[in-house]
Amino acid sequence: MSSRKGETLWIIPDGYIPPISSGDLESHESICVLNTNHMDAQLIVNVYFEDREPLEGITVLVPAKRTLHARTALLKSGSESIPKGVPYAMEVMSDIPVYVQYSRLDATQPANALMSVMGFPVRDND
Amino acid sequence: MSSRKGETLWIIPDGYIPPISSGDLESHESICVLNTNHMDAQLIVNVYFEDREPLEGITVLVPAKRTLHARTALLKSGSESIPKGVPYAMEVMSDIPVYVQYSRLDATQPANALMSVMGFPVRDND
Amino acid sequence: MSSRKGETLWIIPDGYIPPISSGDLESHESICVLNTNHMDAQLIVNVYFEDREPLEGITVLVPAKRTLHARTALLKSGSESIPKGVPYAMEVMSDIPVYVQYSRLDATQPANALMSVMGFPVRDND
Amino acid sequence: MSSRKGETLWIIPDGYIPPISSGDLESHESICVLNTNHMDAQLIVNVYFEDREPLEGITVLVPAKRTLHARTALLKSGSESIPKGVPYAMEVMSDIPVYVQYSRLDATQPANALMSVMGFPVRDND
Repeated sequence: MSSRKGETLWIIPDGYIPPISSGDLESHESICVLNTNHMDAQLIVNVYFEDREPLEGITVLVPAKRTLHARTALLKSGSESIPKGVPYAMEVMSDIPVYVQYSRLDATQPANALMSVMGFPVRDND
Repeated sequence: MSSRKGETLWIIPDGYIPPISSGDLESHESICVLNTNHMDAQLIVNVYFEDREPLEGITVLVPAKRTLHARTALLKSGSESIPKGVPYAMEVMSDIPVYVQYSRLDATQPANALMSVMGFPVRDND
Repeated sequence: MSSRKGETLWIIPDGYIPPISSGDLESHESICVLNTNHMDAQLIVNVYFEDREPLEGITVLVPAKRTLHARTALLKSGSESIPKGVPYAMEVMSDIPVYVQYSRLDATQPANALMSVMGFPVRDND
Repeated sequence: MSSRKGETLWIIPDGYIPPISSGDLESHESICVLNTNHMDAQLIVNVYFEDREPLEGITVLVPAKRTLHARTALLKSGSESIPKGVPYAMEVMSDIPVYVQYSRLDATQPANALMSVMGFPVRDND
């Protein structure tokens, strides 16, 4: 039984907040984090764009022995947030090992579409 | 031909049982386990939430040389089960190496949406 | 530049051929194989079920420097094929290293749903 | 803090540009690349088919500290591009380490379907 489970850096290259919602559900994306540790995890999310400087230093807290499904549209770095309708990518760093999955619900049409990927884990010795 | 194939710990950060079904199919999620061993696999599933203590110790048996696509809504730890409409995460432990994939059918709308990810494998030497 | 790229064993725990199609497209699943080698790859697919003995020894040829997106419904082991509407899992073995992805188009509803996962690679030293 | 993050070779076995679009959105696929380096990344994409010689040498530039969500239908090797409605696979090589995810929006039906996978990373020592 290892004392270190999870990874401290996760990458999500395909981020996109659909600007339109129709039907009953709202278009959104979430980063879904699991912290199985007995300590809270402090995350820093950096956001990369196609045509402008990165938005850095978004902070997210995931309590000990909890999951957090954080909507990307609600993340804030100071007063700045991730714009809708713009392709972006995320780098999710944690001070202790966690697990990260990314899911998107696209409700542009009344009939929704879903996609999900496990984040790409970056190991220290890579 | 290695005698050890698969992993004994798999993580699924984005669990969610859609509370609504419409149309012909029922919204559901499954954890899909493959046991290629000549022995039965005994699994323990621990469930993590955003706002309450984990639900631990759900047991699942996957027979030798069989797959099991277990609906999460039917999993039980004593009399407790995973509530619908609540974000959660899963830790799937097995006494022998297996493979785990997670899939969700969202039939909230008559037109369904599907998503699937391979579980995230945790290796002993990680 | 390594001479060995890809893996020789890939696992797909969540197989299911939707029995119903409506609308313009037909429900189907594919295993998508890429062979970047200068030699043909000979694959053997073993199929595991929930309630019966495995169906073993389905053979698939992927020519050198080619991809093959093989519909699972067309795979044959002798006169046997994978039944529709039944949960199953696949073990894909290749005599030389290849890459395997699995995708499903569910056209049960006129509005289709898609899911895809990379196969889970099993390394020799695992 | 490692100086080398990401991988220089990524594989996507299931490529397919849906030939039809209906409704408000256009069917498309994207390769989503994140370059967290302080240098531009020069990518070469090779495309493999089921029944013809590979299309090699498509070049893509991803600037330093940027993401690029490149539509596959717009990629060019000289005057050649990837045909619609044909199964194919991609090999994405980069001169410096990057991250690659693949996503498809199928708008064949007015109600869209989405799928996404992380590219499969090939490590030098594999």
